[in-house]
Amino acid sequence: MAMDLLDQLCHTICSWLQGTGPESDIVISSRVRLARNLIRYPFTSRATEQDKREIFGFVRDRLRSLELTREFHILAVDELPETDRQFLVERQLISRELHNGSGPRGVAFDSSETASLMINEEDHLRLQVMQSGLALREAWDRANALDDALDSVIDFAYHPEFGYLTACPTNVGTGLRASVMLHLPALAMTKQMDKVVMAMEKMGLAVRGLFGEGSQPSGDFYQISNQVTLGRSEEDIIEEIYSVIPKLIQYERRAREALLSESRNELQDSVSRSLGILGSAHTITSEETMYHLSRVRLGIALGLIDLPTQTVNKLFMQTQPAHLQKLQRQELSGQERNIVRAALLRQRLASANQN
Amino acid sequence: MAMDLLDQLCHTICSWLQGTGPESDIVISSRVRLARNLIRYPFTSRATEQDKREIFGFVRDRLRSLELTREFHILAVDELPETDRQFLVERQLISRELHNGSGPRGVAFDSSETASLMINEEDHLRLQVMQSGLALREAWDRANALDDALDSVIDFAYHPEFGYLTACPTNVGTGLRASVMLHLPALAMTKQMDKVVMAMEKMGLAVRGLFGEGSQPSGDFYQISNQVTLGRSEEDIIEEIYSVIPKLIQYERRAREALLSESRNELQDSVSRSLGILGSAHTITSEETMYHLSRVRLGIALGLIDLPTQTVNKLFMQTQPAHLQKLQRQELSGQERNIVRAALLRQRLASANQN
Repeated sequence: MAMDLLDQLCHTICSWLQGTGPESDIVISSRVRLARNLIRYPFTSRATEQDKREIFGFVRDRLRSLELTREFHILAVDELPETDRQFLVERQLISRELHNGSGPRGVAFDSSETASLMINEEDHLRLQVMQSGLALREAWDRANALDDALDSVIDFAYHPEFGYLTACPTNVGTGLRASVMLHLPALAMTKQMDKVVMAMEKMGLAVRGLFGEGSQPSGDFYQISNQVTLGRSEEDIIEEIYSVIPKLIQYERRAREALLSESRNELQDSVSRSLGILGSAHTITSEETMYHLSRVRLGIALGLIDLPTQTVNKLFMQTQPAHLQKLQRQELSGQERNIVRAALLRQRLASANQN
Repeated sequence: MAMDLLDQLCHTICSWLQGTGPESDIVISSRVRLARNLIRYPFTSRATEQDKREIFGFVRDRLRSLELTREFHILAVDELPETDRQFLVERQLISRELHNGSGPRGVAFDSSETASLMINEEDHLRLQVMQSGLALREAWDRANALDDALDSVIDFAYHPEFGYLTACPTNVGTGLRASVMLHLPALAMTKQMDKVVMAMEKMGLAVRGLFGEGSQPSGDFYQISNQVTLGRSEEDIIEEIYSVIPKLIQYERRAREALLSESRNELQDSVSRSLGILGSAHTITSEETMYHLSRVRLGIALGLIDLPTQTVNKLFMQTQPAHLQKLQRQELSGQERNIVRAALLRQRLASANQN
């Protein structure tokens, strides 16, 4: 069943990637994540196989019992082959930590892939809601509603003074991490990202790559998130990020305008060449693909390339290794993937090249 | 009149570039050049303005008097603007030395641009015949016939022991230089050109770039020519080159076959990307253009790209700086040329991209 589901999913893009939300030329998605642990069980890192099996079974039953989560897909991640686990990472439904973990663990998500719940990750439960564009409040509202529902059927470890107890002290308190995924190609091209990262860090915000903690920025995607969760209300955390993101959006827009006014032809050249390379290569790595797709996405946003942003968003997702293998319905070596990736890109983009 | 003529020429390619001759997938052209000097005048480097004016006038009159050369276009190179002189260099009708020279000097050529005669270059006369493909004997026959005709109306400086006297001792004797222009992308890609150049030099042959002496190899074009002209007959010189070129052609073919059998996909990738870049760039230098056109030409020869070789040959010629300016009918800065060059390439190639 899991197989059938993932085989279908690989042909579509998640709703949070559809570019329908506010400021979606720059803000890919907004994400709210809540860390929760069950009472009466040790944290995941100290839990036994048996503990984890019980937790997974218990949570699955509770999800089935709730109106809000009854229709969620629930997958036992430890029973999935490597490619399927990687596939879930690429869709941001599970973390790399859950992918690499051991023992019974799982993920539950709704059919729009907006809400997902990891079971037996660093914490027993990691609830996540992702929305298209700059929509943190909406994501928070939905996460909050899901959390309330879960809270009504699961006893969470909670300390009256410290708040929610989590495996890592940095998550204690609200257990909330709010993050926004931004596409910042103009700031990257004009070499202003170091400055931006430093400014964010001074404000207590972290800047990470596409796959969160420890991942490198790829395709000029940057994830901005709060660091502190203790001693502050959920709303404060959300508002803090909300106060910063519009400034970042403005910086990126200014950098884009400066590129357009000061070196329009070089910019047109750069984005068109990227489209030309993607539309003609016969072997291409994931990294090079991300690089050029980012340029093309910028070109579309600035009216230099006439192509739907969705085409590019979909390619960002589908040119990833596990997606390619699901689309081809076979295991592929790195070299084979590079060839299949190039063929997919040519098919989708060659005819789109501009004059 | 010169203006009108060159304005027309810029839209066409010379007959020697049409790719109709033998082995023309590898051999672009065969060239025979004869150096001749008039008696009673000092060599060009020591001639006065007045001498040069007299020589040019005299030769022009003789050309008009001969059946074979009556219809030749005759241009006073010293009266042409810089762009037109550069244009003649790009078409290989005159040398860079004649372009940069001083005082009265000229060029005469037939409408197919196969035969040309430089007046007051290093020698008073430099007669050149270029043919498409590997056709040195044909080129020699025609040069010989033209030389005989000129000899019947002009007294050439000739020494019974040394042969034809020339300004530079390396040309004394036959005054003949035979050369073949080869396109050797596979030998260049597989880094075998150093070896080839050394082997040629051991055999007394010189390997030069597109514009002869002192020019860098560009677009993987190499000009192979004899070094010694003294103490040997014209036929010996021609035969010497004829004995070597087929081996070089074979080396290049083997390198192409090896690339095809050992790394077909990488090769397909490389030539397709080159076509993709040429078909999408919005600013591109002459050097980068030559590099990618060379790859595309290789791709066509190996059946990896479906495009007429003539399209590429024509672009090799027309994307050169003076050609671009003649096509646009205006002077252009380097930056403007890069933009116009990219537009020309897109127009001719974008629709030709492959799947």
